[in-house]
Amino acid sequence: MASNETKDGSPKPKKQLLLNAFVMNCPGHLSPGQWRNPKNGTANYNKLSFWTSLAQTLDKAGFHCMFIADVLGGYDVYKGPANVDPTLSSGAQFPVNDPLYLVPAMAAVTKNLTFGITASTTYDAPYALARRFSTVDHLAEGRVAWNIVTSYLESAARNFGLDTQVEHDERYRIAEEYMEVVYKTAVAYSDPKLWEGSWRDDAAPRDTETGQFAVPGRVREINHKGKYFNVPGPHICEPSPQRTPFLFQAGTSKAGTDFGARHGEAIFLGGQTPQKVQESVDSLRKTAKEKFGRDPRHMKMIAGITIIVDGTDEKAFKKRDELLTYGDREGALALFGGWTGIDLSTYSDDEDFKFAGLPAVQSMVKCWADTVPGSEGLKWNKARIADFLLLGGTMPKIVGSAKTVADELERWVDEGDVDGFNLAHITNPGSFEDMIEFLLPELESRGLFTATVEKEGATTRERFLGQSRLLDDHTGSQYKWRKD
Amino acid sequence: MASNETKDGSPKPKKQLLLNAFVMNCPGHLSPGQWRNPKNGTANYNKLSFWTSLAQTLDKAGFHCMFIADVLGGYDVYKGPANVDPTLSSGAQFPVNDPLYLVPAMAAVTKNLTFGITASTTYDAPYALARRFSTVDHLAEGRVAWNIVTSYLESAARNFGLDTQVEHDERYRIAEEYMEVVYKTAVAYSDPKLWEGSWRDDAAPRDTETGQFAVPGRVREINHKGKYFNVPGPHICEPSPQRTPFLFQAGTSKAGTDFGARHGEAIFLGGQTPQKVQESVDSLRKTAKEKFGRDPRHMKMIAGITIIVDGTDEKAFKKRDELLTYGDREGALALFGGWTGIDLSTYSDDEDFKFAGLPAVQSMVKCWADTVPGSEGLKWNKARIADFLLLGGTMPKIVGSAKTVADELERWVDEGDVDGFNLAHITNPGSFEDMIEFLLPELESRGLFTATVEKEGATTRERFLGQSRLLDDHTGSQYKWRKD
Repeated sequence: MASNETKDGSPKPKKQLLLNAFVMNCPGHLSPGQWRNPKNGTANYNKLSFWTSLAQTLDKAGFHCMFIADVLGGYDVYKGPANVDPTLSSGAQFPVNDPLYLVPAMAAVTKNLTFGITASTTYDAPYALARRFSTVDHLAEGRVAWNIVTSYLESAARNFGLDTQVEHDERYRIAEEYMEVVYKTAVAYSDPKLWEGSWRDDAAPRDTETGQFAVPGRVREINHKGKYFNVPGPHICEPSPQRTPFLFQAGTSKAGTDFGARHGEAIFLGGQTPQKVQESVDSLRKTAKEKFGRDPRHMKMIAGITIIVDGTDEKAFKKRDELLTYGDREGALALFGGWTGIDLSTYSDDEDFKFAGLPAVQSMVKCWADTVPGSEGLKWNKARIADFLLLGGTMPKIVGSAKTVADELERWVDEGDVDGFNLAHITNPGSFEDMIEFLLPELESRGLFTATVEKEGATTRERFLGQSRLLDDHTGSQYKWRKD
Repeated sequence: MASNETKDGSPKPKKQLLLNAFVMNCPGHLSPGQWRNPKNGTANYNKLSFWTSLAQTLDKAGFHCMFIADVLGGYDVYKGPANVDPTLSSGAQFPVNDPLYLVPAMAAVTKNLTFGITASTTYDAPYALARRFSTVDHLAEGRVAWNIVTSYLESAARNFGLDTQVEHDERYRIAEEYMEVVYKTAVAYSDPKLWEGSWRDDAAPRDTETGQFAVPGRVREINHKGKYFNVPGPHICEPSPQRTPFLFQAGTSKAGTDFGARHGEAIFLGGQTPQKVQESVDSLRKTAKEKFGRDPRHMKMIAGITIIVDGTDEKAFKKRDELLTYGDREGALALFGGWTGIDLSTYSDDEDFKFAGLPAVQSMVKCWADTVPGSEGLKWNKARIADFLLLGGTMPKIVGSAKTVADELERWVDEGDVDGFNLAHITNPGSFEDMIEFLLPELESRGLFTATVEKEGATTRERFLGQSRLLDDHTGSQYKWRKD
């Protein structure tokens, strides 16, 4: 049986790919130095029109989501400690403005595009964060998602008054309780259960007959008393279209996988090959089913990828070579320092990090070496690492014609079992416009994508999972307080 | 010498009044119950179009600022403790969404209107708040202001994990250090001084010749180590048009006056009569000059006021009577409970609060009694207090024709020494449209107001004080890091 046929021999219906545009509110997200490219506009990241224009482009083309990364400090490990200088020339994720303030204005000029915004459970009070997302879910009419992170930069910890970061697994324990608090405030509870919630579904009817904007008895305290948080409530916001914003998550550690399998409705996955990604997908789906009783298909799997596409393979490679000339290697090594905590400046130019005795770096670099054609036998020293990271950071890279790229994406779907992609940009404008011109028509002709939406103005959860409210098998649903 | 003449007998040039529209991101700001009025739209506070439409109306009419109040908890003292039920029918400042998310979208559809947003120094980390306002100052191209508050609701404190509020004067000590941190991050410092700052004025030139987005050596840590905060920096945002957002403040206690006289660039004043307000104005200007070395005219004095205006006095009074029919007395008493901490439900219906032995309430109520015509000898029991608060809360009220209202505003300017007004609304749409139709032409004909701006797209500080950056005699200016 061919892999593209079902058991009875009919063609397998193809997955409709979920396509996110992956961006950041800064001059240099994953391709440091490209702001100097005259075709690029990311130096205008601090202008609202830069964002509303991008949002309109993506909306028109049928992208599902603009996914905005975020960090809360500078990348200051390389040539550090506490030195952001290597990031300054390239604007490598520094400076970086708060992404959530972009959403209402972008929602106002688009119809269907949704917005996934990164925010941390480590540095913002759950009561305040619940309010921020409720506010934006109201203003964007349900087209927002929260990418839950626990933060990994020492520089962020120090600026929030800590001597050092909260330990990794402890951050996830805090995040678990954090989610309990926000579900209670944002979602409310079901009578037969012990869990408490805050606003009943029909709590704010704006009933001019009875004179009740909201109804006493349908709003109550959550009285959360936990190890990390005490939050009596009630939630300060009435229910927004999604109540709990659609939940993105990206953890891959043991603690991160458990967290994602429990809370995530879409999971953002890294990995150089579909096989590597498939291992994570399997583990997440298994954990979701066995540990948390969820239908494993109620989590959408989204792989991060960098695409350089043009009319022919040759043109695409030529484009890549031209893009490389704008790359900033110092910025790339600064990003690497932030991601790994390792300062490569303290090593010699010759050091081959495939064998440097740094376990985390070693496995990462070996994996890169395995996937870069013609890289066998070459030294992966800091120059080569920098080169690898220049276009799209650690994301796997696909370069070629629409056919080449679409073939490769199909392979990721088949072998990696993913539902869609977080598409990094190298320049903006540029990368997304190329995908719209060359790749999307090819995907559409293969039945893998359509720019036509099923429902105009759908919420994020409707767009990803078919309904606005949390699915019944999601852990947050136990807190739902339904109308009788 | 008549008060409207200068010493040499020529007519005194009239102050150009600064006019703010006073609103809140909730269904019932200071006039609980009015959401039921079919002319009112505040039940749509959670829709972005409600706000963009208001912003365009105010912008076109020449208002200087939309001033958005905020609280971080419900008014749960009346019939409490911890009971928000009395606020639910009327939507009395509950639910209430986060106001800062409205600004970029409103800025995008307006040219000159500025936005004053309330945010607290008690519950948000200074590093995070500096980032929020820098982000919005970028996106709104300098048209934002921060109304600095320290928060007064127990309900907010509890939801941020405290057993009770931080004590009043301690909140101001924290706020003092908070300002030091944000000036350092937002403003930067001057070389000859010891103070440190973060980004030099010319730190991010986006210089394609040198390949530098930002320049090493022009960005540095602030290394703040204080009693309440440790913030090494650097600031995560490059300089925005105003750097420090324009600063509103409204404290009237001893600690609040010191804080306002030091940091405030516009002060929001309460008080039933121009004489009462003038006492506060005098004290603030004196403190600013003597204690903090500022030109006392570098603080704009803005009095809160509620106006009901129509074609004739008679029509205005008729309008008031009709508005009163939508008022919700339970909501008014709930607001009173939050403002004073006193639950009037525990007193008999007959209790006259002019003599109830509650010092704070007594002086407030006596002051109201003195200014409401025909109120001599009447009992100020809870019903009368509720009636007084129904339209515009504790704000002094002016009802009448454009001439009547303009005469009264002129008296406030002359006797109260104020520079402008925070104009409360009773309905929205409604109140501001009435002022635009009846009052503004009258003020314009008297030379007190013009809808014409001096400079298109001016920043908030330019609009209020003539320049975008902090004035040199402002305490924050000592931290400035100027280009050599």
